[in-house]
Amino acid sequence: MHYRLTVEYDGTEFHGWQLQPGARTVQGELEAAAGRLFGVPIRVGAAGRTDAGVHAAGQVVTFRASRVLAPDVVRRALNAHTARDLAVCAVDLVDESFDPRRSARSRRYVYRIWNRREPSPFWRRFTWHVPQPLDIEAMAHAAAALLGEHDFSSFRAAGCDAAHPVRRVLRSALDSDGSMIRFDIEATAFLRHMVRNIVGTLVEVGLRRRSVDLAALLGARDRTLAAATAPARGLCLVEIRY
Amino acid sequence: MHYRLTVEYDGTEFHGWQLQPGARTVQGELEAAAGRLFGVPIRVGAAGRTDAGVHAAGQVVTFRASRVLAPDVVRRALNAHTARDLAVCAVDLVDESFDPRRSARSRRYVYRIWNRREPSPFWRRFTWHVPQPLDIEAMAHAAAALLGEHDFSSFRAAGCDAAHPVRRVLRSALDSDGSMIRFDIEATAFLRHMVRNIVGTLVEVGLRRRSVDLAALLGARDRTLAAATAPARGLCLVEIRY
Repeated sequence: MHYRLTVEYDGTEFHGWQLQPGARTVQGELEAAAGRLFGVPIRVGAAGRTDAGVHAAGQVVTFRASRVLAPDVVRRALNAHTARDLAVCAVDLVDESFDPRRSARSRRYVYRIWNRREPSPFWRRFTWHVPQPLDIEAMAHAAAALLGEHDFSSFRAAGCDAAHPVRRVLRSALDSDGSMIRFDIEATAFLRHMVRNIVGTLVEVGLRRRSVDLAALLGARDRTLAAATAPARGLCLVEIRY
Repeated sequence: MHYRLTVEYDGTEFHGWQLQPGARTVQGELEAAAGRLFGVPIRVGAAGRTDAGVHAAGQVVTFRASRVLAPDVVRRALNAHTARDLAVCAVDLVDESFDPRRSARSRRYVYRIWNRREPSPFWRRFTWHVPQPLDIEAMAHAAAALLGEHDFSSFRAAGCDAAHPVRRVLRSALDSDGSMIRFDIEATAFLRHMVRNIVGTLVEVGLRRRSVDLAALLGARDRTLAAATAPARGLCLVEIRY
């Protein structure tokens, strides 16, 4: 049987998605829970391999097991065998051909910035604290310019193993509500650290240290011209579309 | 000089507001920080003595110190000397006669319920998880009936040392947004555990285990007729009005 899970996690106390000996990872936690339930070693795959400290509200995970269990039984057992910073919200049986990564039509991330003098005791795990005043309008204008198909080499991390740097951005919107700034981006796929590199650059726009017009930066296709990578803790994988 | 602070805290890792030997409390943390800054023992007072696990987004705290320091210097020093689950958001100099508790005209609390099958990895510190479906409309109706002046003996904890049980409720509204239910209540003052006892009762209304009409319950003035106290973690002191 091919099982598909929809998973949420607070990434703070995980060393990212991917299995690592001696470190607590989301993959490791889910494989241990599924292994306990089915009584055999289980290998799980995810739509997005989130980095250490990155959160997920809509991660999609699949695994195969020869035993047939009702989805609801699997959901309850996996929740019982995992810690409270991870929740399995849905379990479905899917076709053999379904691949959480290759079948995905788009991914959507939200990045949160906490923008006031003091960090927030409530949002500290889920936001990047930027204490300086930010020009939200300029940031929103710059964010909107990322819509459409572009070569994102300027926002691509050194270790990225993607075949090519062109991505289609379907949504790129930034707004604020009180001290919270929310950047919502959806694309067919992402390069390594792409969202966090974009956010670092948007914050420099907000600080008026950089032009609102990101076209020249995209055109340069040079990572050294963009800003430093924004911290992982502000990032959340919110949705995968199929 | 008489200093007034506006303080936020995540109550999860505090044993409440009040000083306790051998336990980490908000009062203890602030007194230690102020003592370090001024070089003498400092005693602080609060508008509301929150219980263990209860949060605050607008707690008001005062203390006296003979040394005169600029409010901004005090704010920065207190934040530097306290952990990240507590933030001093404002410091002002106030009149000698100001009393954070007695001068208050009203207090406002928000209680959050997370209402879906799985608890939330993101909201687990700040919500009461109720997995059963709730009748939100019935709960909102019952909440509205608390507006005005009533004898709240039915919602008063055993250890409450208030002189009388009559309180005036200025706001009592419940709404939901996705899986989150938010109960917003403002009153001239509160009895011990009053908000949490009301929320426990509203949830029984939502589960259809109790009549929507709370008038009879208020009229009975009998704590044993109301529901069990809702957990501390959903409660947040959001504002004190003067």
